Amino acid sequence: MNRIDLNCDMGEGFGVYRTSSDGELMKYITSANIACGFHAGDAATIRAAVKLAMQHHVGIGAHPGLPDLTGFGRRSMDISPQEAYEMTVYQIGAVYAFAKSEGGSVAHVKPHGALYNMAAKSKPLAKAIAEAVYKVDPQLMLFGLSGSELVRAGEAIGLRTVNEVFADRSYEADGSLTPRGTEGAVIVDPKLAAEQAVRMIMRGEVRTRQQSMIVLKADSVCVHGDTPGALEHVIHLRNALEAAGISVMKAGA
Amino acid sequence: MNRIDLNCDMGEGFGVYRTSSDGELMKYITSANIACGFHAGDAATIRAAVKLAMQHHVGIGAHPGLPDLTGFGRRSMDISPQEAYEMTVYQIGAVYAFAKSEGGSVAHVKPHGALYNMAAKSKPLAKAIAEAVYKVDPQLMLFGLSGSELVRAGEAIGLRTVNEVFADRSYEADGSLTPRGTEGAVIVDPKLAAEQAVRMIMRGEVRTRQQSMIVLKADSVCVHGDTPGALEHVIHLRNALEAAGISVMKAGA
Amino acid sequence: MNRIDLNCDMGEGFGVYRTSSDGELMKYITSANIACGFHAGDAATIRAAVKLAMQHHVGIGAHPGLPDLTGFGRRSMDISPQEAYEMTVYQIGAVYAFAKSEGGSVAHVKPHGALYNMAAKSKPLAKAIAEAVYKVDPQLMLFGLSGSELVRAGEAIGLRTVNEVFADRSYEADGSLTPRGTEGAVIVDPKLAAEQAVRMIMRGEVRTRQQSMIVLKADSVCVHGDTPGALEHVIHLRNALEAAGISVMKAGA
Amino acid sequence: MNRIDLNCDMGEGFGVYRTSSDGELMKYITSANIACGFHAGDAATIRAAVKLAMQHHVGIGAHPGLPDLTGFGRRSMDISPQEAYEMTVYQIGAVYAFAKSEGGSVAHVKPHGALYNMAAKSKPLAKAIAEAVYKVDPQLMLFGLSGSELVRAGEAIGLRTVNEVFADRSYEADGSLTPRGTEGAVIVDPKLAAEQAVRMIMRGEVRTRQQSMIVLKADSVCVHGDTPGALEHVIHLRNALEAAGISVMKAGA
Repeated sequence: MNRIDLNCDMGEGFGVYRTSSDGELMKYITSANIACGFHAGDAATIRAAVKLAMQHHVGIGAHPGLPDLTGFGRRSMDISPQEAYEMTVYQIGAVYAFAKSEGGSVAHVKPHGALYNMAAKSKPLAKAIAEAVYKVDPQLMLFGLSGSELVRAGEAIGLRTVNEVFADRSYEADGSLTPRGTEGAVIVDPKLAAEQAVRMIMRGEVRTRQQSMIVLKADSVCVHGDTPGALEHVIHLRNALEAAGISVMKAGA
Repeated sequence: MNRIDLNCDMGEGFGVYRTSSDGELMKYITSANIACGFHAGDAATIRAAVKLAMQHHVGIGAHPGLPDLTGFGRRSMDISPQEAYEMTVYQIGAVYAFAKSEGGSVAHVKPHGALYNMAAKSKPLAKAIAEAVYKVDPQLMLFGLSGSELVRAGEAIGLRTVNEVFADRSYEADGSLTPRGTEGAVIVDPKLAAEQAVRMIMRGEVRTRQQSMIVLKADSVCVHGDTPGALEHVIHLRNALEAAGISVMKAGA
Repeated sequence: MNRIDLNCDMGEGFGVYRTSSDGELMKYITSANIACGFHAGDAATIRAAVKLAMQHHVGIGAHPGLPDLTGFGRRSMDISPQEAYEMTVYQIGAVYAFAKSEGGSVAHVKPHGALYNMAAKSKPLAKAIAEAVYKVDPQLMLFGLSGSELVRAGEAIGLRTVNEVFADRSYEADGSLTPRGTEGAVIVDPKLAAEQAVRMIMRGEVRTRQQSMIVLKADSVCVHGDTPGALEHVIHLRNALEAAGISVMKAGA
Repeated sequence: MNRIDLNCDMGEGFGVYRTSSDGELMKYITSANIACGFHAGDAATIRAAVKLAMQHHVGIGAHPGLPDLTGFGRRSMDISPQEAYEMTVYQIGAVYAFAKSEGGSVAHVKPHGALYNMAAKSKPLAKAIAEAVYKVDPQLMLFGLSGSELVRAGEAIGLRTVNEVFADRSYEADGSLTPRGTEGAVIVDPKLAAEQAVRMIMRGEVRTRQQSMIVLKADSVCVHGDTPGALEHVIHLRNALEAAGISVMKAGA
């Protein structure tokens, strides 16, 4: 039986800046990546997102990012593996405490933005982050770009890993995502996006921008919550997956 | 048998700003209150302080403060009980994760600076902080000013509480500390400070600035690490306590 | 001839968090209070707001706040006059540099949120802020609550002051605003709000919540940009003022 | 007549974290680069450094850095030229306002840490920073690594530029500094450092780590304030320069 997890970034507000769509999106996803306070999120938003996730039986994830609130953690920073380790532990802790205080538990960790991209390619950073997750709790799952260094580092240290794929992003021949800004980088048509997702899940392959076919493992599809029409896209994707006989289930369940 | 805990604030650096005395002080204290990143401390300093505490078999404590790095958490802020709850959970989480990742565990929580003072007097804030501690982990001990609202709130919710007293600070008739700036607020002479500590521990009383005698419970003495001669004061205090037959032991041990 | 300034807080976004209404509101106001980075705003939002203000011939104002991004500068903090002085100078500088670099100039300073309220009542804080404004540039105008300590301190040091009144807020018998949360604190009906504004400007008086009539000076009306229907309210107010024969003009022009 | 400026980073504390040596160093330098609040420094430290510089007739400089307090602005960040422009304008403004409020004026701008290094090599970042300086005030001098893109960008836009050299750092054949960590990167012997400075100033050349001789322009020597023995090194350097007949004078004077 084919199964897939749907994950989405949540709790990305800060202070008076609130994101309003979390509640609706929670109905359709299975794993929530909750911003931990470095690139977005504060104590109040983490708590609210944790509670929402629990209400909807959605997996609670920590979503650690670079310490860059102004840049939303999207600007690469030249951090050392030790710094990556330490900022990961710190940020997991924040979500951990809220999950615990609400009677829940953290299921997974997924780095955010530039930290995610850096960890996909850099072995030392990937190793540091995987080690941080493992040492806080070896039961935590580690989400990373399918086939990336981060997933490999997670496997090497003994974590359960979750290969993440993107329905609405184009792939390059080397398995990386086509950089935003390149023509065709984002798949706008929800029907085409859903088709790509179904193919990745059922056949373990994706057609690249260069028209080659590459093999990849799909454990979770990343869903974007901050784009116009996000909710409609998620609903469409979820329906298309289920119509194809794919079971939408929380990772690790 | 008389016993006492000696607690000290630790890990109060930030970034390149390091405090160098932590290593020496750890030899003489029994509980460390580790800054969590809001008023001082960052991921690296928390980790270093946690490791040091474990090496010296010192109790690991989270030391949550107000979100005021510029003011070192010493400026009162008009926060709501809900905000106090949330910032306490968040900050405990940070130390929790580092303790867990190093194979240790958090033993206690002690609010810092203005948050400590506000929680000593305000019932709603005291209740919110006690609830935050309890909900993260009911096994955690809560440190508060001896006889304060915070200690009462901790007891009410079912936490083990630790009544903190000060050897080198003068007391007012109502049990509060004489505000810094008032003449005689700080007891400079280590001999007099040690005498006050011994009397508080052995007789449960302290002579106030107004020369009255008040009753108070002494479970832990707060030791300051950031003053000139701090180390000498701690050593002198510890020797004086042991000479008086008082056993210096970690709270809760 | 009766005249009035209309001022509004602008540039209150941060990083990815954008406020979208600034462009529309600029068409109807005459003075913009631009967030400086402590309670909201960053270098990009300041620059954008300065450019918008210049395009619309709106007076550029610095809007210094408490260093509390999480709380949007709305939580009182126990700061010293010296700290108030220093944070005001720093924040004026940020807007000053952007105004200068765009070929414009700063016209006024208005403290934000809790700092505004604290400066309305505390003589030492009011004096420190007025002194900060004066020392950076004695040509700057100082906006403060009509009749407040801040306005008095500005006059005492030799600044041009602007007495600010509120169309949509109820007044207490002592001239302060009815605290939010109290019934009737906010005047929701735009017609009643406009009537209050007209009376304050033309007669120099306002009917308080206690139904007494008090005297006050009205140089500028504060318009809120972040409430639902804000734009409609501003347009309604401006039309009502002009219909009453009041000239809507930039303060100091 | 040979002349040289001696510049040093100042005001690098934050909140309770104070650097104590500024007062002594000011006696021997001619230009102070004052941290602006992004990588270090706050309103109080800027004001104190500005006052100190004025007392000692030392040139006041803004020292803008990356928004990275934890990393002291030493970690490269992938910022856009627009972001570099905006963060430079903002930070100049802070020092500008304090200089103005104390009756002085800003003489120069020198980027800090990673921003300095990035601007030395990247034409677009160099251009953005030079434009920021020029647009705030075309009379400001721009300090940059001798022969770097930043100096070129400053000259291109019409700023007075100051070529900075290092007495105690080894140079590579391409004119860049030998990276810290490489053997011989730091010239520890004050006598050798002074000799290198004298040769750079009098002959416009430096012997590289590879033993080749390269040509460079020396308008200012960077002096480090945060190393052990900093004060002694500065005094030794200044004496050696004067003994060689070089006049130590503020840049632009």
